[in-house]
Amino acid sequence: MTAAIDFYFDFSSPYGYLAALEIDARAARHGRAVDWRPFLLGVAFGTTGSEPLLQIPLKGDYARHDLLRTARRLNVPFTLPAVFPFMSQAACRAYYVIADADPPAAKALAKRLYTAAFGEGRDIAPVATVVTEAAALGHDPDALAASLRDPDVKERLRAEVDAAIAKGVFGSPTFVVDGEVFWGHDRLDDLERWLDSGGW
Amino acid sequence: MTAAIDFYFDFSSPYGYLAALEIDARAARHGRAVDWRPFLLGVAFGTTGSEPLLQIPLKGDYARHDLLRTARRLNVPFTLPAVFPFMSQAACRAYYVIADADPPAAKALAKRLYTAAFGEGRDIAPVATVVTEAAALGHDPDALAASLRDPDVKERLRAEVDAAIAKGVFGSPTFVVDGEVFWGHDRLDDLERWLDSGGW
Repeated sequence: MTAAIDFYFDFSSPYGYLAALEIDARAARHGRAVDWRPFLLGVAFGTTGSEPLLQIPLKGDYARHDLLRTARRLNVPFTLPAVFPFMSQAACRAYYVIADADPPAAKALAKRLYTAAFGEGRDIAPVATVVTEAAALGHDPDALAASLRDPDVKERLRAEVDAAIAKGVFGSPTFVVDGEVFWGHDRLDDLERWLDSGGW
Repeated sequence: MTAAIDFYFDFSSPYGYLAALEIDARAARHGRAVDWRPFLLGVAFGTTGSEPLLQIPLKGDYARHDLLRTARRLNVPFTLPAVFPFMSQAACRAYYVIADADPPAAKALAKRLYTAAFGEGRDIAPVATVVTEAAALGHDPDALAASLRDPDVKERLRAEVDAAIAKGVFGSPTFVVDGEVFWGHDRLDDLERWLDSGGW
């Protein structure tokens, strides 16, 4: 039984969205499960001194073009939300609240939120939106809304983010397999080569 | 007759070195020639606000590891020079001086300088080193040394760098094919898909 792949992403990361559409199927080809681990890229940016990708001169224009090009290649919907980048704390907290009880349900919520944000270009930052999307998947909206205000839940997310950074995660998406870190949607092929060969 | 691919790189870029080892063969598979266009990444960093990759917390450690891992996968020598990043003006100027008369000879010099820097970990920043390496390929060392001090040659490099940035080039390596920009050694597969399909 091989260990799961850790998939780190920020809900506000468009390349994370593209990776989320591919990672489970790619991992399954190698008999691996995937643990989805949303985190807050902004906290990592505090360490690396980076800025949100699309705000960087030249690089931002390139990324806008490349995201559309890559989505066309993958034949998946892509729309950049009007509010971008956006705060993803509510989405992250909801994810971990649900994941503690039911990991597949949390992954289903993550996929729904990512599709809303980058498939449909909707604003998923508000607590109300996250709760509504979760309710559509059968979660109790009042209980979830209360959880998102719980100091323990806020602390849980802080701990997850710190743990990600301690592992060397500084970008979204990042994949960690057997301690080996791969950063970037464009490293999925490398990740698969590594899974194929057991490293090199 | 299809147009050549423009290959932009900084001599001080380790991912540029890895790309330089692959680009000609990959382009040839699609019947394309490659114009090598060294530029100064530091000038682009002035626009994007980026810093040299290996100096960035977290990201630098990742890149050090990833460079060695990628070089092992490609089965090519890789040694990070003790002085890094280094000034690459002399190498760039020598490249364009020679390219004006004999493009294949300039490409041969670029390959030799890249191998010295990242294959062998040598310091190729000094004018004397660039001239010595060029002399080993049959170029007149005194004439080349004089050229590297020529204000017109310095201006020529400035113009090349400005033209690269005007095309949207902000990183090394960058490939431009028929107006389409691909940034990063890890986008060579995308570049080949584009060449295969004529775009998508």
